[in-house]
Amino acid sequence: MRVVVAYSGGLDTSAIVAMLAREGHEVITVTVDVGQEEELKGVEERAYKLGATKHYTIDAKREFVENYAWPAVKANALYEGKYPLGTALARPLIAKIVAEIAKREGADAVAHGCTSKGNDQVRFDLSLQAYAPDIKIIAPVREKSLTREKALQLLRDAGVEPPKAHKKYSIDENLWSRSIEGSELDDPRVEPPEEAFAWTVDPRKAPNEPLYVEIEFEKGIPIRVNGEKMDPVKLVQTLNVMLGSHGYGRIDHIESRVVGFKSREVYEAPAALALIEAHRDLEKLVLTPRELRFKRLADDTWTDLVYQGLWIEPLREELQRFIDEVNRWVTGSVKLKVYKGSLWVVGRWSPYAAYSEELVDYNKGWYPSDEEARGFIRLWGLHSLTAWHARRMSH
Amino acid sequence: MRVVVAYSGGLDTSAIVAMLAREGHEVITVTVDVGQEEELKGVEERAYKLGATKHYTIDAKREFVENYAWPAVKANALYEGKYPLGTALARPLIAKIVAEIAKREGADAVAHGCTSKGNDQVRFDLSLQAYAPDIKIIAPVREKSLTREKALQLLRDAGVEPPKAHKKYSIDENLWSRSIEGSELDDPRVEPPEEAFAWTVDPRKAPNEPLYVEIEFEKGIPIRVNGEKMDPVKLVQTLNVMLGSHGYGRIDHIESRVVGFKSREVYEAPAALALIEAHRDLEKLVLTPRELRFKRLADDTWTDLVYQGLWIEPLREELQRFIDEVNRWVTGSVKLKVYKGSLWVVGRWSPYAAYSEELVDYNKGWYPSDEEARGFIRLWGLHSLTAWHARRMSH
Amino acid sequence: MRVVVAYSGGLDTSAIVAMLAREGHEVITVTVDVGQEEELKGVEERAYKLGATKHYTIDAKREFVENYAWPAVKANALYEGKYPLGTALARPLIAKIVAEIAKREGADAVAHGCTSKGNDQVRFDLSLQAYAPDIKIIAPVREKSLTREKALQLLRDAGVEPPKAHKKYSIDENLWSRSIEGSELDDPRVEPPEEAFAWTVDPRKAPNEPLYVEIEFEKGIPIRVNGEKMDPVKLVQTLNVMLGSHGYGRIDHIESRVVGFKSREVYEAPAALALIEAHRDLEKLVLTPRELRFKRLADDTWTDLVYQGLWIEPLREELQRFIDEVNRWVTGSVKLKVYKGSLWVVGRWSPYAAYSEELVDYNKGWYPSDEEARGFIRLWGLHSLTAWHARRMSH
Amino acid sequence: MRVVVAYSGGLDTSAIVAMLAREGHEVITVTVDVGQEEELKGVEERAYKLGATKHYTIDAKREFVENYAWPAVKANALYEGKYPLGTALARPLIAKIVAEIAKREGADAVAHGCTSKGNDQVRFDLSLQAYAPDIKIIAPVREKSLTREKALQLLRDAGVEPPKAHKKYSIDENLWSRSIEGSELDDPRVEPPEEAFAWTVDPRKAPNEPLYVEIEFEKGIPIRVNGEKMDPVKLVQTLNVMLGSHGYGRIDHIESRVVGFKSREVYEAPAALALIEAHRDLEKLVLTPRELRFKRLADDTWTDLVYQGLWIEPLREELQRFIDEVNRWVTGSVKLKVYKGSLWVVGRWSPYAAYSEELVDYNKGWYPSDEEARGFIRLWGLHSLTAWHARRMSH
Repeated sequence: MRVVVAYSGGLDTSAIVAMLAREGHEVITVTVDVGQEEELKGVEERAYKLGATKHYTIDAKREFVENYAWPAVKANALYEGKYPLGTALARPLIAKIVAEIAKREGADAVAHGCTSKGNDQVRFDLSLQAYAPDIKIIAPVREKSLTREKALQLLRDAGVEPPKAHKKYSIDENLWSRSIEGSELDDPRVEPPEEAFAWTVDPRKAPNEPLYVEIEFEKGIPIRVNGEKMDPVKLVQTLNVMLGSHGYGRIDHIESRVVGFKSREVYEAPAALALIEAHRDLEKLVLTPRELRFKRLADDTWTDLVYQGLWIEPLREELQRFIDEVNRWVTGSVKLKVYKGSLWVVGRWSPYAAYSEELVDYNKGWYPSDEEARGFIRLWGLHSLTAWHARRMSH
Repeated sequence: MRVVVAYSGGLDTSAIVAMLAREGHEVITVTVDVGQEEELKGVEERAYKLGATKHYTIDAKREFVENYAWPAVKANALYEGKYPLGTALARPLIAKIVAEIAKREGADAVAHGCTSKGNDQVRFDLSLQAYAPDIKIIAPVREKSLTREKALQLLRDAGVEPPKAHKKYSIDENLWSRSIEGSELDDPRVEPPEEAFAWTVDPRKAPNEPLYVEIEFEKGIPIRVNGEKMDPVKLVQTLNVMLGSHGYGRIDHIESRVVGFKSREVYEAPAALALIEAHRDLEKLVLTPRELRFKRLADDTWTDLVYQGLWIEPLREELQRFIDEVNRWVTGSVKLKVYKGSLWVVGRWSPYAAYSEELVDYNKGWYPSDEEARGFIRLWGLHSLTAWHARRMSH
Repeated sequence: MRVVVAYSGGLDTSAIVAMLAREGHEVITVTVDVGQEEELKGVEERAYKLGATKHYTIDAKREFVENYAWPAVKANALYEGKYPLGTALARPLIAKIVAEIAKREGADAVAHGCTSKGNDQVRFDLSLQAYAPDIKIIAPVREKSLTREKALQLLRDAGVEPPKAHKKYSIDENLWSRSIEGSELDDPRVEPPEEAFAWTVDPRKAPNEPLYVEIEFEKGIPIRVNGEKMDPVKLVQTLNVMLGSHGYGRIDHIESRVVGFKSREVYEAPAALALIEAHRDLEKLVLTPRELRFKRLADDTWTDLVYQGLWIEPLREELQRFIDEVNRWVTGSVKLKVYKGSLWVVGRWSPYAAYSEELVDYNKGWYPSDEEARGFIRLWGLHSLTAWHARRMSH
Repeated sequence: MRVVVAYSGGLDTSAIVAMLAREGHEVITVTVDVGQEEELKGVEERAYKLGATKHYTIDAKREFVENYAWPAVKANALYEGKYPLGTALARPLIAKIVAEIAKREGADAVAHGCTSKGNDQVRFDLSLQAYAPDIKIIAPVREKSLTREKALQLLRDAGVEPPKAHKKYSIDENLWSRSIEGSELDDPRVEPPEEAFAWTVDPRKAPNEPLYVEIEFEKGIPIRVNGEKMDPVKLVQTLNVMLGSHGYGRIDHIESRVVGFKSREVYEAPAALALIEAHRDLEKLVLTPRELRFKRLADDTWTDLVYQGLWIEPLREELQRFIDEVNRWVTGSVKLKVYKGSLWVVGRWSPYAAYSEELVDYNKGWYPSDEEARGFIRLWGLHSLTAWHARRMSH
């Protein structure tokens, strides 16, 4: 059997390669670079040592930001109000690339390293079934044919060092967020210790002067930082570094997994959080309250679908159309102030502001008369007042 | 093992009794009467013949109407706009009764006859896991240990006639609806033939004069028909007969099952449909547009939860509180006209009407002045107009 | 002053022409034909008699159906579940045409005949303020400068017969609906008498055989009736006649006006109601339950905006984009059965059906195993069950 | 005429008292203490000097917190995601007290000092029309009978010093928030200067060590701070001081007023923001994702109603019932860390946690099998995948 393995370079997917190769399968490894810097080192070399016959490292950073992270900014995507979806966004992209290679290579199966208790298996399986419906999915960790002991043994047998994992935590990292799980974090009462964080400094050690950052958006997409035009990948990397160095970007919350559990999750996501905060602020300058109210429903629904592994649900794409349409007007700039872990929006401007300079006089100049104001209040509240009195008078 | 079987008297659950008895288990059968007249005849006698050691027939008709159907009326519960949830409402009640008996009898397991492709397994399993978390669930049809051939053989071996099924269709019936599945109905292009229907006459054979029915509600609950106070069960039975005899109450639609399929479903539900139509009309006389708008969200969410087997989801009960609260004012009467399959609301009255007689003068007497009206229109539309012009002026 | 009058030919707008002409203004009359057949006869001639110096009759029927009624079908637009928005849809179109002529003619003002208690003033004023922000709006009926007596006197002075109004009711008519107000209809308890209806026959006098109609949709838009391709205007006219002759198309409900009142409203709308019913049915064959659920929110919001005079709210257009996007797949045909006032969908087909022939085997062929089904039920209900037990165990 | 004046002690309401007294009316002044410390000094004495014949100072702080602020916490009430509704919550309470006194005193009218461009006139007028429908409302500032010059002259004539206003800003203050308007803040591009803030220190001057605060909730209501039981008023005051001294609690956003404008608003609200953040976190520990999702709709709708002056809309109270019902389980404690303007939740605990200790083993112990997990994923995604493939295969 020819099997394409979604290969992160971690312990589990390394062992899968070794196991499949040993079982006589032809193994092709695919590593998709979505910004997880650490893990990429030596990944190809190790794949071959483990028995792969062919290896792909695909730089998908730009596609990840443009087609996955930017839509998330436009949708102000924070799952349950907190999580900017880093891993959830990367999975369908990885699946798409793996499916394309599997079809091109005429593979019989694809393999991934997900467990049966996580969200990622849902994201991988459903995307793979959409993009490559005729190719079998193998999930050795979920199938329990691969235990941790067996995994380590397989690597030893192949003469490959187990990858250096974080000493305490299980980490998943890409440009959009770094998630930290395990150890004492599993107890929702315990404050995450400083050693859990890598992208953000301890706020107490952050610089003593606030940082001002100006972000310019065009149709909902960030294009400039402090006046400098940046390509999408660099823009995200820059903000992660700038803001993280001021201690900004930590998340700690309780999360409802699609598989029925609650878990305590800790993340770092300086760029994602700041861009969404700035984008939201700009939307409020430009959009009508009716647009804001309905868009919140669309945004939340989009976010839930992506989190829940339903990137391929047709509604997701249709919501995107609505969200893009509204974002046509979300152009302008937002000034952020960052200081020892805090971030405030302290100024904003847009050519489409609902009180642009052209409109200021028009608004200021016009004062409703007493009679106009009373007319508004009367008709605005009349349904409510009529019901209020009808219910009391009838008692 | 002591097993309590949710025993409808149909082929599948009869065979389950025989199978479990033959395997040496002590079998207790429970038949819950929710108004499925046909199927109840001889059910106890047959249970003993099949090997049950104890049998319960529980008349749950009143509880079904009061605690399951009335809340559905208050919630205007039509799944995907069409299905009044008959079967979906009965399942958690049956599960509750079966769980109570199982606990009282010290049973080791409960058994039901659901397949792996239907909604009912979800409704049964989740309710049972809530009401009797420590009791094992056995589902022989789903487990494939019970095929149709084997079922027939088991009955023959027990010397029991297979129950007379409908010659063509698979039927599920209770006071709230009769569902008809199978045969040519599986083709969504084909009109259901007259033989599929039992509760409703062919509209062409209905009486030549319209029927007028007046329904009186108190706090959202129907209490009188044409001035006559009726107990809940009789009220539903009466309306099913009255309206069905005029050809009213048929449903034919495409339904999204919780297990991921679409199916074409045909139902009869004269009382349910008429009560919901009347209730909705009365709500519009009484409730403010803001109450109507938000209640639609609450109603739809309640309906989805019940359909999807989530009767035990805490949100279901919390929504019920909201829905009850709003229904405090849904008191009054609605006049229906029924004719050859059609039903129209032709009159309605409530002491809490948003234009009760006490309010008429107040409303009629008052005409907004031109300035008041312009004030309202201006402020009502100002956000929209400001954005309209801002976006055009900036281009 | 040069004034463009939105001139229906009725008493009020006729008197407005006479009044403005008498006051020395230059009056240009604009009559927009949106299908209100009766009222259009002799309208131009009368305008000149009343003192107009120029008259336009604009045939906007096609634009009305294509750009206003078709979007309403795609949005399943029934305000408060009942009213297909006929008048509400026509107002912004009339305002647009009047505004365009006013700008072209260099007019100083536009005039309309709305009162201060209705929805239409909101629809006219806001659309006019968007399309012609610099032109003054005159509303003599609202301003109370024009009473009924004064109106009749103005016509007498001009030697013009008052237009023959309906003997009892106030009527507004266009291709999409006919609304009937006034007289005994103001009492919500009273059944509307037969004389109120003009488009629909008394169901008791309808033909004794059911009528079958097949409607074919392409991307959400009806294009064929019984296999015959029809232009939009003819399609609507044909259905109004066909279905109305079988007594189908009457509406009677309580409606929440944007100006704070409830009113009892009676309508006839055979084509509109049938097209929306058919369209909804087809959507359910094609769309996922998630699409259906979210689209209902978008549809209801779109409908509310249009009813409430907010055609020009940017959200309305953005929702349309979403609705159009979803309707890309609402292609296929729906078979309707109409009989003595009733209408049933009895068959439907689509190339994009969520169980197309290509998928049937895939679905039928696959049966979830007991373990798969249990896995689904477990994870599907786990959040609910966990909370259920946590709340009980802690008590 | 006997007039009851809602008397804040500020310039406008002081001048109203003087004007009405001079016009010969009998003036009764009512000052409602909702925690606006500054303004209350000498308010009674000044009322009499201005011509009032009777004065009431009503301490409504406890009622304000218990019946207005606590429901807002339960509803996580942040208008447009930012504003905790301080002023919006106080207005209906003030109106209720003024209406009660007016009825008790047999007054002919009540007077308030709102302008025609603000939200507060809507809140006052509608509440007054509900609580005292037969009493006339006088609004001299809106009616333009009272200009600033005239106001100052009236005070001079009465020999009363104009109240010391903030040198630059217009301030409204109560226990729940302090709002700052005017001057350079009107320009949304300009960062608010330090002088605008009174409750919160400059974060750069905040202590160098983080502050930990533990807040204990019972059924959604905060009852203890750092283990100390506090009465509601003291709890809010304590948190405002504690958190404000660490620079926490500033808000700067663009707000959509009910009267059709956008404005830039700056607030301080340390207690309100922290309590809502903590409450939200606790909800996520306890509530199912379905409860969280639906509650967000209820919360947002409640918040919009309160902001928009519709405290008396029946839906507001009905939503409160739902919100209270859900909050029955929001019991537990939340640990906050505050540092130089930032606030993080760093720990939480609840007896109703969706993973209470009783459930931990149950969850950990159970791992879905590969087949169960695949069954879940299949059925979870089947509607989406079916549609995905149907749309592609048909092309």
